[in-house]
Amino acid sequence: MKHTLSSGNVIVGQSGGPTAVINASLAGVFKTALQRGAKKVYGMRYGIQGLLEGRYIDMSDVIRTDIDIELLKQTPSSFLGSCRYKLPEPVLGDPVYEKLFAILNELDIRCFFYIGGNDSMDTIGKLYDYGQLISSDICFMGVPKTIDNDLAITDHTPGYGSVAKYISTITKEIVADSSVYDMKSIVVLEIMGRNAGWLTGSTALARAWDCPGVDFIYLPEIPFSLDKVRRDVEELQKTKKSVVIAVSEGVKDASGTMFSELVGNTTSVDAFGHKLLSGVGQHLANYLGRTLNCKVRSIELSTVQRCGAHMVSLTDVTEAYQVGGAAVKAAFGGKTGCMIILKRASQEPYICVTDVADVHEIANIEKKVPLEWINENGNYVTEDFVNYVRPLIQSSVSPLIVDGLPGHLTMPKGM
Amino acid sequence: MKHTLSSGNVIVGQSGGPTAVINASLAGVFKTALQRGAKKVYGMRYGIQGLLEGRYIDMSDVIRTDIDIELLKQTPSSFLGSCRYKLPEPVLGDPVYEKLFAILNELDIRCFFYIGGNDSMDTIGKLYDYGQLISSDICFMGVPKTIDNDLAITDHTPGYGSVAKYISTITKEIVADSSVYDMKSIVVLEIMGRNAGWLTGSTALARAWDCPGVDFIYLPEIPFSLDKVRRDVEELQKTKKSVVIAVSEGVKDASGTMFSELVGNTTSVDAFGHKLLSGVGQHLANYLGRTLNCKVRSIELSTVQRCGAHMVSLTDVTEAYQVGGAAVKAAFGGKTGCMIILKRASQEPYICVTDVADVHEIANIEKKVPLEWINENGNYVTEDFVNYVRPLIQSSVSPLIVDGLPGHLTMPKGM
Repeated sequence: MKHTLSSGNVIVGQSGGPTAVINASLAGVFKTALQRGAKKVYGMRYGIQGLLEGRYIDMSDVIRTDIDIELLKQTPSSFLGSCRYKLPEPVLGDPVYEKLFAILNELDIRCFFYIGGNDSMDTIGKLYDYGQLISSDICFMGVPKTIDNDLAITDHTPGYGSVAKYISTITKEIVADSSVYDMKSIVVLEIMGRNAGWLTGSTALARAWDCPGVDFIYLPEIPFSLDKVRRDVEELQKTKKSVVIAVSEGVKDASGTMFSELVGNTTSVDAFGHKLLSGVGQHLANYLGRTLNCKVRSIELSTVQRCGAHMVSLTDVTEAYQVGGAAVKAAFGGKTGCMIILKRASQEPYICVTDVADVHEIANIEKKVPLEWINENGNYVTEDFVNYVRPLIQSSVSPLIVDGLPGHLTMPKGM
Repeated sequence: MKHTLSSGNVIVGQSGGPTAVINASLAGVFKTALQRGAKKVYGMRYGIQGLLEGRYIDMSDVIRTDIDIELLKQTPSSFLGSCRYKLPEPVLGDPVYEKLFAILNELDIRCFFYIGGNDSMDTIGKLYDYGQLISSDICFMGVPKTIDNDLAITDHTPGYGSVAKYISTITKEIVADSSVYDMKSIVVLEIMGRNAGWLTGSTALARAWDCPGVDFIYLPEIPFSLDKVRRDVEELQKTKKSVVIAVSEGVKDASGTMFSELVGNTTSVDAFGHKLLSGVGQHLANYLGRTLNCKVRSIELSTVQRCGAHMVSLTDVTEAYQVGGAAVKAAFGGKTGCMIILKRASQEPYICVTDVADVHEIANIEKKVPLEWINENGNYVTEDFVNYVRPLIQSSVSPLIVDGLPGHLTMPKGM
């Protein structure tokens, strides 16, 4: 069924953790929906949780000019605000769904767009299912985003290219810094990723014509052992003074227990007797410093990874915008219960196109790094991994600089 | 005495911690020395410590084109390598000095340039003093650099503007990220600075037309108390859900004991019984989370602060290059035992000029943030502080991007 949008409205929300380019997808939904005849584009404040409290805005009140749209694309964090809210199972008469659909009908919503990761696709899937139960003609469409790059079916996820670019840029700088003194030293970089090693693996990009890169990469896909790392480092130290290690925050021992949990649940307490959930990076650094007797430093890249909007990939920004636009196009063409995916049409030259996939095949599934993209020693990624990620970090954006700092679009107070 | 450089050589070294623009000063020394008639420009590998081991290069072997010079200016970390080496007191006949001056004479060195902070100026002062004892006609000239901005006499230090720009950029992004969920939360940013709060204070720049900025700033110049911070935060939480705090790693209690030492020396141990010298940020976060019962996150900006070369201030790069050139000009004009300083000739428009100062008045002295630039509550900086630092972060550099990442000049293997 083809929707007539000339008299109807759409609504868009953002959910889960932010990325540096999640607002480019928002810009893509907003601009394309207006271009294709939507009367109003509403934005949920704080995702579906905010919507349930009746919190939404007319986005045209906030985005008034094409300059605002460009600024929105460069704005970090989720412009509309986000939530982590899990919908109940879609059972006819459930009060949560009754309330939601009442709000959507009151606003004359024809299409509902949700920008998020696997959890957010669970929301889209359930809304679609409930909509079927009550024969609603509202379209529900997912727009992919996550720095974690762990969504199924899609070649990659908008947000990943920019964090890979930021991580590998920082890693090059840290590697240069690490060898500044003529002495044995170890630097441990702890990088985000609970179950999938996509972010940690992207440090491999730092190995380039002008940088030796990191020496070892440990992903959560491979069982982790302190002793194995020590042996790797000890062997390399015979020929190399400065060693740099990238480790995923989510590495697990052979039994599948997260190393950080293992440590946090034992004897680690702070000055107030409070358990320290210290990261694996600091603990690995302490262990190596003690067993190998050399200077060790641990660096945790932290949430800066997901909000480092000053160093994004133009390829990623462009694709983030495109999936937003493609979601509108698909929904206005009658698709529902789907998520936009990216398909790599060509590796050289790199060309990606959009398509749609059933959201039920994506929700709640985590795509991990294929084991064949990890080397035999379990301590680095293969050339296939590097070839996969390299196109995603290409081309840069010059941020709009105001008084020395990148400028962002802001939500007016009280909205 | 005016030196004739047409038949003589110069040597340059880098010492102490790197900055994002320390190599711009190196480029300034190199290019200006050649322009003004130096026959050769030698570079010490790993500072004076490497020189004592006979480790130096002819810099023209490495910097061959003007593109190399531009690339050098964009290269993070100390290109020549660095050291933390303290010279003995300059006593006639001391073997260290005898060896050093023998190497300098063998290389026909007329001028010796050392790019560094207060410790490095101690080196320049002692070399000058020893030179006087043996009536050497070698000039010794200091070139200022340090992210810490704690050198006396000079208005500010090259390296500071870029780290202030990087910190305030990241801070804006973190502030945007911190309010993404509609819930009470606290983010603690731990920022470098053992005794001086220049870096932590620069987070005040994040408060702008498009960003509420951080809410509280705690510097090492003011006695620090966990309870005081809790009261500050508790009061603000009555009207604001998301609170962001910047704290210097070097904050001290009323007795002058560093908070991080206090914590590290008590009961904090890791899984292996090893004392954790965890930062104040993590401990403050734990304390606030427990006493105020809300979500807390600690972010340590770590060494990324001093190597974040992808986001430098053009003003800083330019001044770093200028002080290198000015050092050559002054030395070739007969100055010795001096450091180049920056003098703010005008605030609006911002104009800085170079001058020289006796290095003995700079060595080993730490310039702190004036107390009148900290507010009465001891939890933020004043407008004077902001006006002081704002010109230093102005204008940006577009890094040379190669295959998606900023390109750097590299030292060939074996040099």
